[in-house]
Amino acid sequence: MHLEKLAKVGGAWLRGSGPDSDIVISARVRLARNLKGHRFLTRADDEDRQAVAGKIRAAIGRAGLGDIAYVDLTDVSSLDRMLLVERHLISKELAGCEGECGVAFGPSETHSLMINEEDHLRIQVLKPGQALTEAFEEAMDMDANLEKHLEYAFSSQFGYLTVCPTNVGTGLRASIMLHLPALVFMKQIDKVFQAVSKINLAVRGLYGEGTQATGDFYQISNQVTLGRTEEELIEDLLRIVPKIAGYERRSRELWMKEDRVLLEDRVFRALGMLQHARKIASEETLDHLSAVRMGVNMGLVEGMDMQRLNELLVLTLPAHLQKGEGEELPAADRDIVRARLIRDRLKPSRG
Amino acid sequence: MHLEKLAKVGGAWLRGSGPDSDIVISARVRLARNLKGHRFLTRADDEDRQAVAGKIRAAIGRAGLGDIAYVDLTDVSSLDRMLLVERHLISKELAGCEGECGVAFGPSETHSLMINEEDHLRIQVLKPGQALTEAFEEAMDMDANLEKHLEYAFSSQFGYLTVCPTNVGTGLRASIMLHLPALVFMKQIDKVFQAVSKINLAVRGLYGEGTQATGDFYQISNQVTLGRTEEELIEDLLRIVPKIAGYERRSRELWMKEDRVLLEDRVFRALGMLQHARKIASEETLDHLSAVRMGVNMGLVEGMDMQRLNELLVLTLPAHLQKGEGEELPAADRDIVRARLIRDRLKPSRG
Repeated sequence: MHLEKLAKVGGAWLRGSGPDSDIVISARVRLARNLKGHRFLTRADDEDRQAVAGKIRAAIGRAGLGDIAYVDLTDVSSLDRMLLVERHLISKELAGCEGECGVAFGPSETHSLMINEEDHLRIQVLKPGQALTEAFEEAMDMDANLEKHLEYAFSSQFGYLTVCPTNVGTGLRASIMLHLPALVFMKQIDKVFQAVSKINLAVRGLYGEGTQATGDFYQISNQVTLGRTEEELIEDLLRIVPKIAGYERRSRELWMKEDRVLLEDRVFRALGMLQHARKIASEETLDHLSAVRMGVNMGLVEGMDMQRLNELLVLTLPAHLQKGEGEELPAADRDIVRARLIRDRLKPSRG
Repeated sequence: MHLEKLAKVGGAWLRGSGPDSDIVISARVRLARNLKGHRFLTRADDEDRQAVAGKIRAAIGRAGLGDIAYVDLTDVSSLDRMLLVERHLISKELAGCEGECGVAFGPSETHSLMINEEDHLRIQVLKPGQALTEAFEEAMDMDANLEKHLEYAFSSQFGYLTVCPTNVGTGLRASIMLHLPALVFMKQIDKVFQAVSKINLAVRGLYGEGTQATGDFYQISNQVTLGRTEEELIEDLLRIVPKIAGYERRSRELWMKEDRVLLEDRVFRALGMLQHARKIASEETLDHLSAVRMGVNMGLVEGMDMQRLNELLVLTLPAHLQKGEGEELPAADRDIVRARLIRDRLKPSRG
């Protein structure tokens, strides 16, 4: 299993570039599917779970999905499960699964197939930047290939059948992760959320459903899955994201115009803390990384490699730190290791 | 007048080196004197003040005190008066004087003669480091030279007569400025103060009577002026200061032993703030300078010139900043200028 090396480098979805990559971190599409003739997991026993996993793993093997490896989560420590969550390869729900469950993903980590999460199968594509259409197409491709070898629970009236009624129909959840520090600072973020919810989109935190938005990072995703086509749902998101990015950009300009010193003070103090702290908690790290990321994107901080910075968003998380050190560590020790890692990665450039 | 260049460089009393200079910043002796046949300033009119100033200035001229220039404070802006306070050349009281008053001091700024402060004459010697005996001897020398040309108000019963009864007798106030960050952090500073007050010594802030101790800097001085000789008063201080320095040093060692990470975190975050902030207030500056100064003295921060650091204690004060910029500035603008000055002086060493 290749989990060890994961702790050393950030996920591919952090390597965003191109239009709006200053604000749009990543795009994600996931499809929820269940197998016909098998009970939903809410009512399944061990035997059912094993049968489902066996069928899906066989289909993955036959579907020609490329270089993809299966991680049986029953074999894996809770630390490794948390590592997979931190990389967005599995959901928190799957990390807590009991009985047969697992995930298949390739070395690029952009495509993952969760088995026995809430539904029998969750197909996920996570792409850096504004690549929602690409993610959608690749997810649909995977789905079509798998469907050649699997019979999905499908109703001609409702569409794909899922455990939770909010997923019935397309089974599609599309989301975009956005970095919105200026809207937060300007106290405009609630207005954005209100506008977003009016068009049936939801706002979530960095780690999906039920998690808090932290460090100015937000996921916008569709609420509705039923009664509209997949393409329409994707269109909704593709229409709103550039608008939110535009609001964020205008807020940055306004902040720069109204109080450039405060803006710079915030950005550079954050950089100073990251470069100098000898112990630092996750939340403080995320706050500072957010400020510095904005500073780099606004051209205030020079000589800072954006990918190194983005990768810290993941590498400083608890499981990554512990995998990196090769041992489980209490929170106080993680704070020390985290500070050291950040200092190593953000050494002031000499020139 | 040479006030302009004062704003560019810290006072000589900041250039401490030698034993205990990690903790003992400076030593100060001042003598309070009044002229016989002239009313105390509490009852003096303009004519009295002018007569007193005339006599003392003439005596200064004749006493051969070396390269010394007189600054007539009636000619001087409130900003310049504040500049002189920040350099410890005049007291806050003298800065607020109305009517004839002034100060004579030489380019080294170690010796100053205040005219029409609370008493007619205040002789002050301020030396870097642990040089209390030297300061005392030089103050007594100046006093003896001036006394050849002035008749002091003196009682064979009480000694030198002064406006405030707490100065009667020797008219001597001797003080040592100490940097005690570890005792403050370890919450042991009150114990020190209690011990100090039991032997009739007082603790004051950075700018003397009535000012708060800030940024871990404290002045210890004699309370009693009557009934003991000058030498005995100096001895009392000379005995206690190495003890307090020893407590501080042991507290630093204990802190290092018990929580080195927290100690380093505090020191380096302070350095990070100083090197990165785009605006910073006086109080925050003093706190951070205190932490970094301790870090340098404990060998944690390398490549930092102690004199540059010490000078910032004075150069970042409001009047110094404004003189440096050549104009009066509101507090918000001073915070920006202060942050820039600090960044310039504390650029990370490259190597």
